[in-house]
Amino acid sequence: MRVLGIDPGLTRCGMGVVEGSVGRPLGLVDVNVLRTSSDLRVPERLVTIEKGIDAWLDEYHPDAVAIERVFARSDVSTVMGTAQASGIAMVCAARRGLPVALHTPSEVKAAVSGNGRADKAQVGAMVTRILRLDAPPKPADAADALALAITHIWRGGAQARIDAALAGTRQARRPRSLR
Amino acid sequence: MRVLGIDPGLTRCGMGVVEGSVGRPLGLVDVNVLRTSSDLRVPERLVTIEKGIDAWLDEYHPDAVAIERVFARSDVSTVMGTAQASGIAMVCAARRGLPVALHTPSEVKAAVSGNGRADKAQVGAMVTRILRLDAPPKPADAADALALAITHIWRGGAQARIDAALAGTRQARRPRSLR
Repeated sequence: MRVLGIDPGLTRCGMGVVEGSVGRPLGLVDVNVLRTSSDLRVPERLVTIEKGIDAWLDEYHPDAVAIERVFARSDVSTVMGTAQASGIAMVCAARRGLPVALHTPSEVKAAVSGNGRADKAQVGAMVTRILRLDAPPKPADAADALALAITHIWRGGAQARIDAALAGTRQARRPRSLR
Repeated sequence: MRVLGIDPGLTRCGMGVVEGSVGRPLGLVDVNVLRTSSDLRVPERLVTIEKGIDAWLDEYHPDAVAIERVFARSDVSTVMGTAQASGIAMVCAARRGLPVALHTPSEVKAAVSGNGRADKAQVGAMVTRILRLDAPPKPADAADALALAITHIWRGGAQARIDAALAGTRQARRPRSLR
């Protein structure tokens, strides 16, 4: 399975593609950070982000897109831009019929490091180990995007087992928490 | 000048097209509220909103798009969806090279009613008078979208005069507040 992880942001939008499956070594396909200048107006910055994401979807054909879930409680000065960028990322994926999953920062930290409160350096170090890289990806937005993709592959495996179990008990109603 | 006003929202997204110019009677072209079900996942709801806005841009060919500016201080339970919908609206317009303007709720209320703290009923009543309608547009999101378009036409006129004055003094540097 190939997953595009997106750490949305107006100034820096991290994108990381990871390939693999649960129980096997994961591999880095590509990682990048889209940057847009604050000299541009927000609509133009969002169009740049849309083009960058579309270009990667065309190039890497991921099976799913994992996006960081943004909370209203986050830093007020940047949260609106982050929310707008995450909306664009969702639309880029959903327009192509790709599954979109949102993972919270704590879920990502817990998945890659075992600690939901891990700091940026710990996340970077774990991403480096998991993908067998020579050095932690920089900036942090790049590592975060890869951590999102890793989380999605690992949680996807667990989710697939839960879904199979639910189907087995013939209670295939979709849990509200997955909507 | 023809303006599409958009009151962004995930559950209800108001869209209103108004035609006219400063100092002349304004006319209603069309008004509608896009609704998306909370049973759908957010990415699909955003794609529905994108399609709805694109369809109106195709049909009405506005000269500009006016969108309500969303603040992080707004109601936390809906602000993320509103921010995402506003991001989609901006991208739909900017992709076509259309000018996008953001107006705050207070600016819109002040422009149509002379009172930045006007309530929904007052805004609805003023939109009805300005556009010479038989009854206030419903729901409130429809009236708000029309009020945004009216505000844009009226402020656009003032802005054009300010720009002309600035050009006259050969200080054509773009004010930061307009970015």
